[in-house]
Amino acid sequence: MATKQEIASFIAKEFPQTRVQVLEAGGMSATVAHEVGANELRPGGTVSGPAMMATADVALYVAILAEIGIVPLTVTTSLNFNFMRKPSADRRIIGACKLLKLGRTLAVGEVSLYSEGLPEMVAHAVGTYAIPPKRS
Amino acid sequence: MATKQEIASFIAKEFPQTRVQVLEAGGMSATVAHEVGANELRPGGTVSGPAMMATADVALYVAILAEIGIVPLTVTTSLNFNFMRKPSADRRIIGACKLLKLGRTLAVGEVSLYSEGLPEMVAHAVGTYAIPPKRS
Amino acid sequence: MATKQEIASFIAKEFPQTRVQVLEAGGMSATVAHEVGANELRPGGTVSGPAMMATADVALYVAILAEIGIVPLTVTTSLNFNFMRKPSADRRIIGACKLLKLGRTLAVGEVSLYSEGLPEMVAHAVGTYAIPPKRS
Amino acid sequence: MATKQEIASFIAKEFPQTRVQVLEAGGMSATVAHEVGANELRPGGTVSGPAMMATADVALYVAILAEIGIVPLTVTTSLNFNFMRKPSADRRIIGACKLLKLGRTLAVGEVSLYSEGLPEMVAHAVGTYAIPPKRS
Repeated sequence: MATKQEIASFIAKEFPQTRVQVLEAGGMSATVAHEVGANELRPGGTVSGPAMMATADVALYVAILAEIGIVPLTVTTSLNFNFMRKPSADRRIIGACKLLKLGRTLAVGEVSLYSEGLPEMVAHAVGTYAIPPKRS
Repeated sequence: MATKQEIASFIAKEFPQTRVQVLEAGGMSATVAHEVGANELRPGGTVSGPAMMATADVALYVAILAEIGIVPLTVTTSLNFNFMRKPSADRRIIGACKLLKLGRTLAVGEVSLYSEGLPEMVAHAVGTYAIPPKRS
Repeated sequence: MATKQEIASFIAKEFPQTRVQVLEAGGMSATVAHEVGANELRPGGTVSGPAMMATADVALYVAILAEIGIVPLTVTTSLNFNFMRKPSADRRIIGACKLLKLGRTLAVGEVSLYSEGLPEMVAHAVGTYAIPPKRS
Repeated sequence: MATKQEIASFIAKEFPQTRVQVLEAGGMSATVAHEVGANELRPGGTVSGPAMMATADVALYVAILAEIGIVPLTVTTSLNFNFMRKPSADRRIIGACKLLKLGRTLAVGEVSLYSEGLPEMVAHAVGTYAIPPKRS
């Protein structure tokens, strides 16, 4: 298992350009936040799809690392997104992940995406990660 | 309908930061290329998931605009990804989209993603877009 | 809106061969149960994928009808499934649906599938339904 | 590897109630047909979603078995469906599968579903199967 601090350090080191911050990790779940700036905005005052997709992907990764420890070769194998509402342009995107299964070789989780502080889900994701067969 | 040039101009104007280029559009299909630089790279010498996801999303958008004309409010409602192989770090990501259905209010398409010049598919996406009900 | 009884009557009349029963409906959610008999069993003592998929599809349909009333032309447009554990051969499959969005023309919901009485989720689904534009 | 006949015999023996027939198998692809009778029909003269989903699932299974041989424990881990057009009530559902990846532990494929003899795709599926780690 890895703590929130260990995961945040690992991500800061390995993904120096990431705009996603780890807020919580552990207990088969994780919460992350994606900054929203010029790079993430779209015409009409909304947040880009790829920024939301990145948030979901990192939320899943963090939730899994919190359970299995820092296993860098854990990789996304599938992601399914439903985009439901236009996110707010001036709030961070929050991704709240709950793992549905943590097997030896596959983990499955779902992620609810929100504009920070607003109650309605803007998008929803379900993803699977492959865990390398031999891990220490 | 919109030509490849009209769509490329629209995208350049509305999404000035995009790193995706329109290569072909029309005939219920489209091909786009995503530049790969420091922002898109990941440890281990591979391309980020969000860069691949952005490529697929734009490929679908371009294929639809080529059929229905420039309808900016056409928005992604769902995207499903399967990640199959590690893309090459020093090649553009190519997204080749084929529309499977173009209805009045919903379009569905699939996108094959490749590292430019290499034969094996690195990822595959299927997505749906909602088309605004009244369009000129 | 439609009550649980109205929906159960509608389903019994329109889908006379269904093996799915409505347990609860309303409040943006629904719970249904799928009988498991010879038709649903698979070698190795498990329940068939299509039986689980039917359960999820009906759970979504029931949750939507409970909100919008009996609108028969409401149809599934997409379904995404993750199969996580082997269901029990001698228990009904329970599908618990929660709607994530109920728009004018599109509804999105997720369904957790269980073997009745057992705590672990056997499969998870996310689906979208198209609602006919003009409804009474 | 397994031939079309070996796979058809295996399916007939293990899934005696199946209404799906193997038409072709091999070369990273497969084609199957699902009979349409009273059990598969829906009000309005169309084919049930679960019948289409079963067709896609079997098409994937057959395409994989044709490559890796009869490995019964190969199981579906995810399936994504897009339903695009109303299938014909009086024609078999044809599922044409193409494998996109055949790895050691995961296979990914897509399936195009048609009403037999009609040109337009009625639904499209993408699925992943887990292959048991040690196979003979």
